[in-house]
Amino acid sequence: MNNPQLNKHGELQHLLSTEGLPVRIMRDILDRASTFLSPGSHEIDKIPLLHGKSVFNIFFENSTRTRTTFEIAAKKLSADVVNLNIGASSTSKGETLLDTVDNLCAMHADMFVVRHSSSGAAHLIARHVAPSIHVINAGDGRHAHPTQALLDMFTIRHYKKEFHNLTVAIVGDVLHSRVARSQIHALTTLGVPEVRVVAPKTLLPTQVEKLGVRVFHDMGQGLKDVDVVMMLRLQNERMQGALLPSAQEFFKYYGLTQERLAQAKPDAIVMHPGPMNRGVEIDSSVADGSHAVILPQVTFGIAVRMAVMSMLAGVSA
Amino acid sequence: MNNPQLNKHGELQHLLSTEGLPVRIMRDILDRASTFLSPGSHEIDKIPLLHGKSVFNIFFENSTRTRTTFEIAAKKLSADVVNLNIGASSTSKGETLLDTVDNLCAMHADMFVVRHSSSGAAHLIARHVAPSIHVINAGDGRHAHPTQALLDMFTIRHYKKEFHNLTVAIVGDVLHSRVARSQIHALTTLGVPEVRVVAPKTLLPTQVEKLGVRVFHDMGQGLKDVDVVMMLRLQNERMQGALLPSAQEFFKYYGLTQERLAQAKPDAIVMHPGPMNRGVEIDSSVADGSHAVILPQVTFGIAVRMAVMSMLAGVSA
Amino acid sequence: MNNPQLNKHGELQHLLSTEGLPVRIMRDILDRASTFLSPGSHEIDKIPLLHGKSVFNIFFENSTRTRTTFEIAAKKLSADVVNLNIGASSTSKGETLLDTVDNLCAMHADMFVVRHSSSGAAHLIARHVAPSIHVINAGDGRHAHPTQALLDMFTIRHYKKEFHNLTVAIVGDVLHSRVARSQIHALTTLGVPEVRVVAPKTLLPTQVEKLGVRVFHDMGQGLKDVDVVMMLRLQNERMQGALLPSAQEFFKYYGLTQERLAQAKPDAIVMHPGPMNRGVEIDSSVADGSHAVILPQVTFGIAVRMAVMSMLAGVSA
Repeated sequence: MNNPQLNKHGELQHLLSTEGLPVRIMRDILDRASTFLSPGSHEIDKIPLLHGKSVFNIFFENSTRTRTTFEIAAKKLSADVVNLNIGASSTSKGETLLDTVDNLCAMHADMFVVRHSSSGAAHLIARHVAPSIHVINAGDGRHAHPTQALLDMFTIRHYKKEFHNLTVAIVGDVLHSRVARSQIHALTTLGVPEVRVVAPKTLLPTQVEKLGVRVFHDMGQGLKDVDVVMMLRLQNERMQGALLPSAQEFFKYYGLTQERLAQAKPDAIVMHPGPMNRGVEIDSSVADGSHAVILPQVTFGIAVRMAVMSMLAGVSA
Repeated sequence: MNNPQLNKHGELQHLLSTEGLPVRIMRDILDRASTFLSPGSHEIDKIPLLHGKSVFNIFFENSTRTRTTFEIAAKKLSADVVNLNIGASSTSKGETLLDTVDNLCAMHADMFVVRHSSSGAAHLIARHVAPSIHVINAGDGRHAHPTQALLDMFTIRHYKKEFHNLTVAIVGDVLHSRVARSQIHALTTLGVPEVRVVAPKTLLPTQVEKLGVRVFHDMGQGLKDVDVVMMLRLQNERMQGALLPSAQEFFKYYGLTQERLAQAKPDAIVMHPGPMNRGVEIDSSVADGSHAVILPQVTFGIAVRMAVMSMLAGVSA
Repeated sequence: MNNPQLNKHGELQHLLSTEGLPVRIMRDILDRASTFLSPGSHEIDKIPLLHGKSVFNIFFENSTRTRTTFEIAAKKLSADVVNLNIGASSTSKGETLLDTVDNLCAMHADMFVVRHSSSGAAHLIARHVAPSIHVINAGDGRHAHPTQALLDMFTIRHYKKEFHNLTVAIVGDVLHSRVARSQIHALTTLGVPEVRVVAPKTLLPTQVEKLGVRVFHDMGQGLKDVDVVMMLRLQNERMQGALLPSAQEFFKYYGLTQERLAQAKPDAIVMHPGPMNRGVEIDSSVADGSHAVILPQVTFGIAVRMAVMSMLAGVSA
């Protein structure tokens, strides 16, 4: 099958998902990202790689945090950034999604960063636009969030150097998480031999094992000797209702505490995509503790997004 | 009478309306816009004509699409752009419109792009500001939307080369349309010998003939042998209520279908200011068909807005 | 006590309050601001002092006006500006304030401009961030609004040259005003010998005299022979309710009319932080009269904010 993320030369045309993303391209992105981070320095220099290019942040679903990281990454590359909150805009005027996209293309967009509550929206847009326009999926429904997964991979490589000798546990609401799906595909592609998911049955997709993961329902067993703990955010709307008795109940069985983390390897790292619910999925002592690499994830996220954008722009760095 | 759009040397000081805009200035704008469009190329180069200038998009009425085109045009000219959604702002704090404007002027604005639901708002602001500040009307009530009309003229000239031999039909809700008013003035100024309006009586202004147009209530007759079909958007709020039985009814009599378009000349072009209501004022087969030049309109709109801004900034290109 | 606004070399590290701000730093800011204003010219040149730096406007409380002045100031200094309306964002997702701040720091912010409805929010953030990051308080609860006070001082010095021979009256709702607090500290620090507050008892803090001001309840007496009248805005929510009978009643006793202004010195100036309630705290004839310097305040505000930002960025101008 034709891979919609690659052009006919096998180069990255769009970034839609970590599923089906070749390992050489993943490694390319991580390598390129590291060139934007001066070692030990807080600063990322502003560089003119995307000068004169227009990056459109098209957010059909609100997300200040993700939108901001893309905006900063684009501005560090000297692109012009246009933020569009489409919820409040033309779609409410009865225009179709593809008409909106066609219009934005006609405004000389070079790159779209798309967030949408429907799975597949970014793919739909990517298939529709002219070849000169590149699409980055910034989260579509429950499907994928590839830049989050790639910055997670960058973080793991930064602290663990290699992927082939790791045990990684993904903990929490896998069922509703596009982050988890993208992480699983990225981890298996990069050669992590053991990827675990740790969650109650009600928060796991059916047949999740087919993705190549080991399933655990018990935190103690699931975290045993892992190198990396990847916590997922518990969405507020899940905390009451049919799937979970309560946030307190969730924390009791699946919250990451110091005690439970002690099951992992002594040098294990703890990750979280943010925003955190302290006391729900993660205890404050762990969030602020020495194993947490949650803020470096954010910093690396700027570099990874710069890498993806500059690669898509076809500019050799 | 003094023309509020021109300075004492007869140069463009503000762009408020196509009514009363001299033909030499209209032609200047179209000529200048074409210099920003490299032939056949998707790209518009970023140029430093407005470097160091501040363009304020003051939108008292929400419009992501129009605001975005002005933002892009300003950034392509290297201006700093400040977006102000005034609905949510100081006017709700009891400040008068002119106090708000005075404050923005005092913040070193060089140019205002104004959208307001009241007819005449842009004129009021233009009369009020210091001579160093320029005002562009981005739509005021039912009155005028001159950059839309000018990009329409650019589109017509692009495809038809000349104006003096054309028959142009404007179709739909002329009564509530600032776009239609501005189009009629621009077309007659540029020498189009026959401008038609095609609409039910309830959607036409009284004495519309005085604007120099021929009135048709029947689509078949109205489109007969025209060179250009300019569709208008039917606002959602018109689709039910006193003036129209329903959207379906409107489409039945005034929707642009392939069949009806066959009345026009074989090389007729079809335009629409967007956003389109497919199946209400225009059939999808026409919107996506070979006569439609709706997306080029958007692209030309960036160039036309760059032309207006650079002319107002008094910079010779 | 350690001054949280200064680093160990006594240089400005954060701008949080005019309280405790050394007079040499206040004068530095005013002097530096004057270098950004070419005499008699409307223009402020764009300069590259903050090129490559990222300024984050973090507004937990909506304020288009203040946010815009900081945005313009930062862009005139060539910084990249990211606007964050946090009300609509992560805090609604259950994230703590400091987690939000940590995340923004990790995104390579160089400077935060913070507005928050809680007194002390900017201090809290300043204490929390790494030393490479600078915080400007753009208004916190009823506590402080230092850049407003500093632009007021700039305005006074511009028109009156010196502070040591002035009588200044602050009129209106002192109780709820962070502007008034910051003005009082700035005026006394800069050596104004007589600072008056003029207000009904219900709109004055208890023991306001301890701030070094003289209290007047009568406008006629309070304005007698003053050099400067600083009006305060009456918040809409105060106009009805327990503290005030009505806006009309307030105007009757404390509104600034031509008659009352006649009590002041003939060359007195009238200031207002905006947005004005005409007919509530100030009569239109005064607001538009020859004594008013309300719009120059706005213009000077851009220069003062540029001065603060460039000083914080540690760049010698």
